[in-house]
Amino acid sequence: MEPYSIGVDLGGTNLRVAAIGPTGNVLERVSVPANYEHGPAPIVAQIVEIVQHVRSHSLGVLLGMGIGVPGYIDIDAGVVEGAANLPGFENFPIRDEVQRHLAIPILLENDANAAALGEMWLGAGRNVKNLILLTLGTGIGGGIIIDGKVLHGNHGMAGEFGHMTVIPDGNPCGCGNVGCLEKHASATAIAAMGRMMHFGKEIDTAEQVYDLALEGNTRAQLVFDSMGRALGIAIASLINAFDFPLYLISGGPLPAWNFFAPPMFAEIKKRSFTYVRNGTRVEKALLGADAGLFGAAYLPFQSGTAILISSALAQEK
Amino acid sequence: MEPYSIGVDLGGTNLRVAAIGPTGNVLERVSVPANYEHGPAPIVAQIVEIVQHVRSHSLGVLLGMGIGVPGYIDIDAGVVEGAANLPGFENFPIRDEVQRHLAIPILLENDANAAALGEMWLGAGRNVKNLILLTLGTGIGGGIIIDGKVLHGNHGMAGEFGHMTVIPDGNPCGCGNVGCLEKHASATAIAAMGRMMHFGKEIDTAEQVYDLALEGNTRAQLVFDSMGRALGIAIASLINAFDFPLYLISGGPLPAWNFFAPPMFAEIKKRSFTYVRNGTRVEKALLGADAGLFGAAYLPFQSGTAILISSALAQEK
Repeated sequence: MEPYSIGVDLGGTNLRVAAIGPTGNVLERVSVPANYEHGPAPIVAQIVEIVQHVRSHSLGVLLGMGIGVPGYIDIDAGVVEGAANLPGFENFPIRDEVQRHLAIPILLENDANAAALGEMWLGAGRNVKNLILLTLGTGIGGGIIIDGKVLHGNHGMAGEFGHMTVIPDGNPCGCGNVGCLEKHASATAIAAMGRMMHFGKEIDTAEQVYDLALEGNTRAQLVFDSMGRALGIAIASLINAFDFPLYLISGGPLPAWNFFAPPMFAEIKKRSFTYVRNGTRVEKALLGADAGLFGAAYLPFQSGTAILISSALAQEK
Repeated sequence: MEPYSIGVDLGGTNLRVAAIGPTGNVLERVSVPANYEHGPAPIVAQIVEIVQHVRSHSLGVLLGMGIGVPGYIDIDAGVVEGAANLPGFENFPIRDEVQRHLAIPILLENDANAAALGEMWLGAGRNVKNLILLTLGTGIGGGIIIDGKVLHGNHGMAGEFGHMTVIPDGNPCGCGNVGCLEKHASATAIAAMGRMMHFGKEIDTAEQVYDLALEGNTRAQLVFDSMGRALGIAIASLINAFDFPLYLISGGPLPAWNFFAPPMFAEIKKRSFTYVRNGTRVEKALLGADAGLFGAAYLPFQSGTAILISSALAQEK
């Protein structure tokens, strides 16, 4: 009997669950719309129901489950400390609440950290144990993997790359700073810059700016130039600090790579001799929205218990 | 018999050696001028001689020795890859060359990393296992301690904080970038800014600018304001990335703390909500020039062999 684990991605719009084997083989997966209007109780019920369904359709020894949460979590306590996009989840003991209904070991992880783990396990970081992932979305989040494990920092807040200062006198940010990376390089920032470019039509999304850039609109291309440069400044500083072999970029703006990557690399080359000297890789993440789901499923494989069970199984063979 | 280790600090001007016990108790220490004019051979001979002297004056079981090197090193190979201030040491197998004369386990470490270790062991970082040290000198170097160990990065180049970009259109740096932290906040940068302030006398050192600031010269104080702000921008980004409990600053400009720290903290508070939220500490390092020497001596205690010997000794008692 092969071991497997269950990953749960507690997204703002969708709840996704997958049963995954030790080589990343997906045994079963389910995605349903998540409705957070009525607080955490119905969400817990939904998780329990889907996990039971997935479990009944997956052959093997279940090692445990991992839940990726878009917010700050107390991993040891199993509590969501704060999650702007999950109303009612503040200080909610999600691990114990789910565990009451399912007698399975449960591990929590922040969603961006889970995505970084997922990319290491099955994505663009398969060959390395040290990487940084930057996720470009409404804001910019990220995860740091050191020696194959998530760096959590003192309060689970490591990897807040979106609030690194890239332009000391740049755009004001909701966090109180000016010139935060996410005010210059997130999907939201791309749309905001697009609105200042007088395209003669309303701009709501980064995708619209991308479409204009594809049509050859030089001002739309300039938006991605500016965005790429901001990203390059931040990544160069990260390379100078960490000297990791791999830095990954994921998120909605990824299709615009050909527009933002050349100015990004120009900045990185100029601003990091570590990059130039060592041929550090800066690449697209590969798993898209699945990274967090896969990373959550990886948690039980990574934990000590799982390794113990795995080697017991190996000896059985 | 108490265990002890020997630390060697291979400084650009002085060669310093100390025998240190497990609680940081200094059994013996020697400091002599180092002359690098004739290449590594006489330096190796000098190290061997001093170590033999120190050893003969120290009672206990010698666990090994650590050497702090101001340059890039290949730790596993025991080779100095490059050291701008140690002429003739490029690609020099210092570990094996010293070991030929002394049958002692020898560990190498970069001097800034060793200083960070030293501060953790016996200095301002005694209570933590995760810290970052920034050393302000001719340039700005630093070390990252994660879980009590040095983060080396992919090529031993982690912690190059001096080349983080703080002002994207700032002062040009020898590395090819503009606006590197060390062009705005090192001792060299303080002196350079001082020269632009028309003090009516020649400025050669950061100390002269400090003396003027102490005398109430507002333009000299402005230099430290600018320097503190640059430092604050970089430290805020480090806090956002690492979420460590402690960030330490060491080096020549430290006496000017009262001038540069207030603007530095103003920038950190503005630019890192992690700092504001968690009461992260940003403090003066405590060991001064001894940090690297003590950190080098800590290496044998930290290595597996040393722990083995230590616990064998503990059982003997």
